[in-house]
Amino acid sequence: MNNSPQEHTTGGQYSSKGKAFERDTQYITTRVCREPGEGDRPVEAGRYRLVAARACPWANRTLIVRRLLGLEDVLSVGMPGPVHDAESWTFDLDEGGVDPVLGIHRLKDAYLARFPEYTRGITVPALVEVATGEVVTNDYAQMTLDFSSEWAEFHRDGAPDLYPEALRAEMDEVMQRIYTEVNNGVYRCGFAGSQEAYDAAYDRLFAALDWLEERLADRRFLMGDTITEADVRLFTTLVRFDAVYHGHFKCNRSKLSEMPVLWAYARDLFQTPGFGDTIDFEQIKQHYYVVHTDLNPLQIVPKGPDAAAWLTPHGRESLGGRPFGDGTPPAPVRPQERSPHPAI
Amino acid sequence: MNNSPQEHTTGGQYSSKGKAFERDTQYITTRVCREPGEGDRPVEAGRYRLVAARACPWANRTLIVRRLLGLEDVLSVGMPGPVHDAESWTFDLDEGGVDPVLGIHRLKDAYLARFPEYTRGITVPALVEVATGEVVTNDYAQMTLDFSSEWAEFHRDGAPDLYPEALRAEMDEVMQRIYTEVNNGVYRCGFAGSQEAYDAAYDRLFAALDWLEERLADRRFLMGDTITEADVRLFTTLVRFDAVYHGHFKCNRSKLSEMPVLWAYARDLFQTPGFGDTIDFEQIKQHYYVVHTDLNPLQIVPKGPDAAAWLTPHGRESLGGRPFGDGTPPAPVRPQERSPHPAI
Repeated sequence: MNNSPQEHTTGGQYSSKGKAFERDTQYITTRVCREPGEGDRPVEAGRYRLVAARACPWANRTLIVRRLLGLEDVLSVGMPGPVHDAESWTFDLDEGGVDPVLGIHRLKDAYLARFPEYTRGITVPALVEVATGEVVTNDYAQMTLDFSSEWAEFHRDGAPDLYPEALRAEMDEVMQRIYTEVNNGVYRCGFAGSQEAYDAAYDRLFAALDWLEERLADRRFLMGDTITEADVRLFTTLVRFDAVYHGHFKCNRSKLSEMPVLWAYARDLFQTPGFGDTIDFEQIKQHYYVVHTDLNPLQIVPKGPDAAAWLTPHGRESLGGRPFGDGTPPAPVRPQERSPHPAI
Repeated sequence: MNNSPQEHTTGGQYSSKGKAFERDTQYITTRVCREPGEGDRPVEAGRYRLVAARACPWANRTLIVRRLLGLEDVLSVGMPGPVHDAESWTFDLDEGGVDPVLGIHRLKDAYLARFPEYTRGITVPALVEVATGEVVTNDYAQMTLDFSSEWAEFHRDGAPDLYPEALRAEMDEVMQRIYTEVNNGVYRCGFAGSQEAYDAAYDRLFAALDWLEERLADRRFLMGDTITEADVRLFTTLVRFDAVYHGHFKCNRSKLSEMPVLWAYARDLFQTPGFGDTIDFEQIKQHYYVVHTDLNPLQIVPKGPDAAAWLTPHGRESLGGRPFGDGTPPAPVRPQERSPHPAI
């Protein structure tokens, strides 16, 4: 993601002196649906391209859910590089710096194709309609839920149910708390413009991590025996914690690796097909340390910590559980979609 | 310390874009000796005041050695606050912002009293002659060795021999490596002005820490069974590692607390009278995070990590050893010299 006035320019201001960080949460609300309502678009194989930078935790959700559900054949993916320019995420990693399907260098062009006067942040993840080159939506939270429900006819055999009807009421609460306290909580620490705002954000973040440490002590996944969307959403923050948030965002009561339950839980997911195989720690570090020049003016990217720790035994099997419920794990990542710096 | 063109101003540049960090190592070489040579000064009870900020690792050495040797009665101490101004360390913590013995607000005044045209960094530790108000020396490395040798007549009963004749050849080598690779090594990481300079500094630092991890695996202290000046010099960097160097200076292959031998060794020293009782983690964090605005423009000071971990059992007694050799530990810190934020 990259979506607030403070959070969308290279060399720009992500923090605001004297102020707490407030995320701009206004997204393009068009949905892609099986039975599209007024203004929405229909689900259709090959019609859209998912644009999702590996660096970004919000985009990372879509990469994981697409893998878990097996949507690769019906929804192609374009991946901007980790270091966007002052105006937009860019396709630096592609040949000639141009996305081979959309034919654009800057994601911004897809936003402008639909909204010529678009002034909000150019964010990932975004769904872009291939034929028109127009952005359809950048509403990351709705997007993965729609992958689960609206795109059901295209799911692979054995795809898990990541958003089970029977659990939705409790899941929505858990996910809301994870969003405000953890996913966005680390940003509130890092982009705090005053000591008071930082101190308050830090306390909230670690209170929530303590809650999760307790919740996960005796259940394998957030909602019980089986992986759900809630785990996807927690994972994308945890996997960045020691590499970025601990130092760069000053979330330093402890490293993730010093919170035994959460660390084992995060490694359990990392080692599950569909999770760790979407991760590129180099791109993650490049993104945060190079783009946030108001926090790290010299743009030095730390060498540590060693990602190999993610592959150590986690011991969570002893809690039982059926990670994919009645389903099965996804097949290995396709060669053309492998992480440039795979950790697994 | 605060002693290079790059390292002596608040709001100034500590790093130099595109360049590796190089410490200015030219100090005032006057010594305080039992039999002073040309230009040196005589050892004398009450004649000098040690100016040493708790925040600074180089000054910390003198605070520890003064405690271990029991020089409190003959050498008083003045302590500037953690956050100096653009020109000098200042006595912010004292009533009225003035050192009660020297009667000055800025340490710089003592430098100017002796050298009206002084242009180098105003550094701590410094010895100042009380009667004249003149700085005598700021040569921190020579200073502690002179405390051990030249000030011997004033040592307390049971003071340890921190610089034993028989060990000096090996000690000098060990201390030199600790200085270049560790004490100054963390600064080379933090003040690196290019990715290449940082990467090289990081590799050198952790190679040295690996060497120390091995060296200390089966011996209680650096030179064997007994604490020496070499331990003092390593301690002052290790004690700041997780609070500052790991995040702020990007020394993040691991925390000290993840290097089992060094972490136990550092806690062993911390819990030894004369070491941990000189430490103020709040002042340490304030100093680095507020003063180095080129690294941390928003001057937010992290809340973590929890200093209580320093008091956990270290288990190093099982290696044997006699921390003070034929001597004894120093008495508890005098009430007026207690750390404002004691961790022990």
